[in-house]
Amino acid sequence: MRILIKDVTIVTMKEEAPFVGDIMIEGDKIEDIQSEINESADDVIQGKGFVAMPGLINAHQHTPMSLLRGFSDDLILMDWLNKKMLPAEARMTEEDIYWGAKLSMAEMIKTGTTAFADMYIHMNEIALAVEEVGMRASLTRGLVFIEDDGGKRLTEALDLIERWSGKAGGRITTMYGPHSPYTCPPEPLKEVIQLAEARNIPVHIHLAETKEEVIKIREKYNQTPTEYLYHAGLFERAHVLLAHSVHLNRRDVGFLKGMRGGVSHNPVSNLKLGCGIAPITEMLAQGITVGLGTDGAGSATTVDMFEEIKAASWLQKLDYSDPTRILAAFALRMATHEGAKLLNIDDQVGTLEVGKKADVILVDMKKPHLQPIHNIESLLAYSANGADVDTTIVNGRMLMKHRQLLTIDEEELYSQVAARATRIVDGI
Amino acid sequence: MRILIKDVTIVTMKEEAPFVGDIMIEGDKIEDIQSEINESADDVIQGKGFVAMPGLINAHQHTPMSLLRGFSDDLILMDWLNKKMLPAEARMTEEDIYWGAKLSMAEMIKTGTTAFADMYIHMNEIALAVEEVGMRASLTRGLVFIEDDGGKRLTEALDLIERWSGKAGGRITTMYGPHSPYTCPPEPLKEVIQLAEARNIPVHIHLAETKEEVIKIREKYNQTPTEYLYHAGLFERAHVLLAHSVHLNRRDVGFLKGMRGGVSHNPVSNLKLGCGIAPITEMLAQGITVGLGTDGAGSATTVDMFEEIKAASWLQKLDYSDPTRILAAFALRMATHEGAKLLNIDDQVGTLEVGKKADVILVDMKKPHLQPIHNIESLLAYSANGADVDTTIVNGRMLMKHRQLLTIDEEELYSQVAARATRIVDGI
Repeated sequence: MRILIKDVTIVTMKEEAPFVGDIMIEGDKIEDIQSEINESADDVIQGKGFVAMPGLINAHQHTPMSLLRGFSDDLILMDWLNKKMLPAEARMTEEDIYWGAKLSMAEMIKTGTTAFADMYIHMNEIALAVEEVGMRASLTRGLVFIEDDGGKRLTEALDLIERWSGKAGGRITTMYGPHSPYTCPPEPLKEVIQLAEARNIPVHIHLAETKEEVIKIREKYNQTPTEYLYHAGLFERAHVLLAHSVHLNRRDVGFLKGMRGGVSHNPVSNLKLGCGIAPITEMLAQGITVGLGTDGAGSATTVDMFEEIKAASWLQKLDYSDPTRILAAFALRMATHEGAKLLNIDDQVGTLEVGKKADVILVDMKKPHLQPIHNIESLLAYSANGADVDTTIVNGRMLMKHRQLLTIDEEELYSQVAARATRIVDGI
Repeated sequence: MRILIKDVTIVTMKEEAPFVGDIMIEGDKIEDIQSEINESADDVIQGKGFVAMPGLINAHQHTPMSLLRGFSDDLILMDWLNKKMLPAEARMTEEDIYWGAKLSMAEMIKTGTTAFADMYIHMNEIALAVEEVGMRASLTRGLVFIEDDGGKRLTEALDLIERWSGKAGGRITTMYGPHSPYTCPPEPLKEVIQLAEARNIPVHIHLAETKEEVIKIREKYNQTPTEYLYHAGLFERAHVLLAHSVHLNRRDVGFLKGMRGGVSHNPVSNLKLGCGIAPITEMLAQGITVGLGTDGAGSATTVDMFEEIKAASWLQKLDYSDPTRILAAFALRMATHEGAKLLNIDDQVGTLEVGKKADVILVDMKKPHLQPIHNIESLLAYSANGADVDTTIVNGRMLMKHRQLLTIDEEELYSQVAARATRIVDGI
């Protein structure tokens, strides 16, 4: 299958200015990018008035939580979690997980996300949904060791890694998922780190999302959460994807210096739950990779990465009273190339380059809020939203064309999730 | 003309739970709202899967600045203003103003805004565009008295008020527009306040957008900007629409207590320019009316009010580390009923009620990010964006149906603004 995109404005995310040209996709790869390509193709897309850019990468998701979107907004975090999310999640069947994941994927494809990192339970169902839908994903079984089934969870994590790493035509990768400093005591945490190091599998973990976590870890270990992970050897031994990382002091940021992987900043979820502003500017000054994620739709309420791009830039401008913080082009880079680094797939995706996998989105600029065009990157970072994405291609396959999903039946999806969501929250 | 909307989920914004029913529009008014209406109409809209709510009200706009969208992002405020915005604005012709205003209106209609308050120059062209396009607007000629043409500007303001108040079938109202404390010395400011009081016309003014303004007014008058306006008699003598109001201390908020009108909070612009977080929670605690605005697209980069609804709620949650601040339903109310109060048109619009003007929008909920439906108001406040608006009705007239603008030619609009925008910024 060869797809040719003609006369499109190309934003490669490779530190070059946007330019107009043609893109040829052959199989799962970008075969050529030129000012003009005159070759035949199975599908020719007229790209005039559109921007082609790398698909967005959502570096922190809990996809099935879409079933709980809007179910418990405006509550304090611990009530939200303990009174609403956990009781509802406990009722989710494997089939619910499958459909919830698919709902998030429908939204991601419709808003230009092509790859995501997911941490949840019943990961086999999510992997099946990813395989079927056609997205790229890094899947992680969340590991909590403060209840007595930690061993069973670890078995499931190992099973996920064995069964799914490199599957679905290479679209699925896996990580180990010790949930967080406050749910992983030192011994099991170190055990997971050893496994990750031995198998060369990355680690996906939450860090310092709330002030309460900082207090809890201080009481328990007389350390900050970051210090706790550092002393467990995490940053030295594995490629690590740190979610949130809001409450880090200057010394904590120093512990991350030189780490493989980096931080998934999730500004919308942090705002929505009143968590605070992550010290992204300080991390970037220390050379730490920062990508963007939405967190689950249960907190973030949408998984539109364009919202995160805006919010990430806004929050640093606010925090420093300085509108020159996080420039438009860099905000876009966080959502693409930097995210690819976090997922450890930057050799494959994250930029538009010949030889890379064809994860490409087309943004329709013929909208009142995207005119006139003084600066493409400014428009994409600050004015665009997910609904402006016209076409989404993953691994050379079109998953959405002109806003129509090609691998998900929307009517069936909505009827499935409506029934399941109602059952799950009944009486909670 | 009678329009009947059937089987729609109705959010009246009148402190009642959403319910499913029918809405009959007759002429420019809402004639009936019932669980079922079985009467004939010229146009019957099947509302299943849609939410009907009051059109959004943008309480602070500079519509023609859409021509400068994305032209000068990520600069410090004074460079943005002095090196980019002001030189570009100085080149705008009357025709540019007309087309820029129309571009903002196209975006507003497409994102569910039905009424707005606008402060700019060449207001006659904006009034003509409003008349033609069919929106509702409160128009203000900005008055700056630190240059020597203050008198000419005041004449233009009087001319706007004489010529356009109550025109376009009552859709156009007017205000006096002394620009801000730092551009209006005491004498001309008091003169404008007297005129406003004598003619019973409201006043639209910027207040304390930046820290720099607070310093400047302190140096000049040994007062805070709010104190300066208070002592000029503004709050006592007129209905006042205050834009921004970011840098108010507790005492300043006290000066606003009991005022007619209130504050247009513009969180996206405040974030984008790094201005700070307005003390909305304190204002609300004092009973001050707070609505939402976008500011011009030159700073806010979009005029999608759904972004402001989210950002307003997020910023108070962030500021208080408390996710229970600004509940979803109240955030929606700020963008509708509270905005109507600011524009002094709450007897006509801002809620869905029999006898009120028919300013109604239909939001399409059949989207992945708006499913499943646990809580309509949460979805509208936190998950929806402007692109979810399917139909926009103002004064009983459909301005957009199924995403198609009915009173603006989009192709012509984009070609006009592209040429004009290029000319305006050339060499700046």
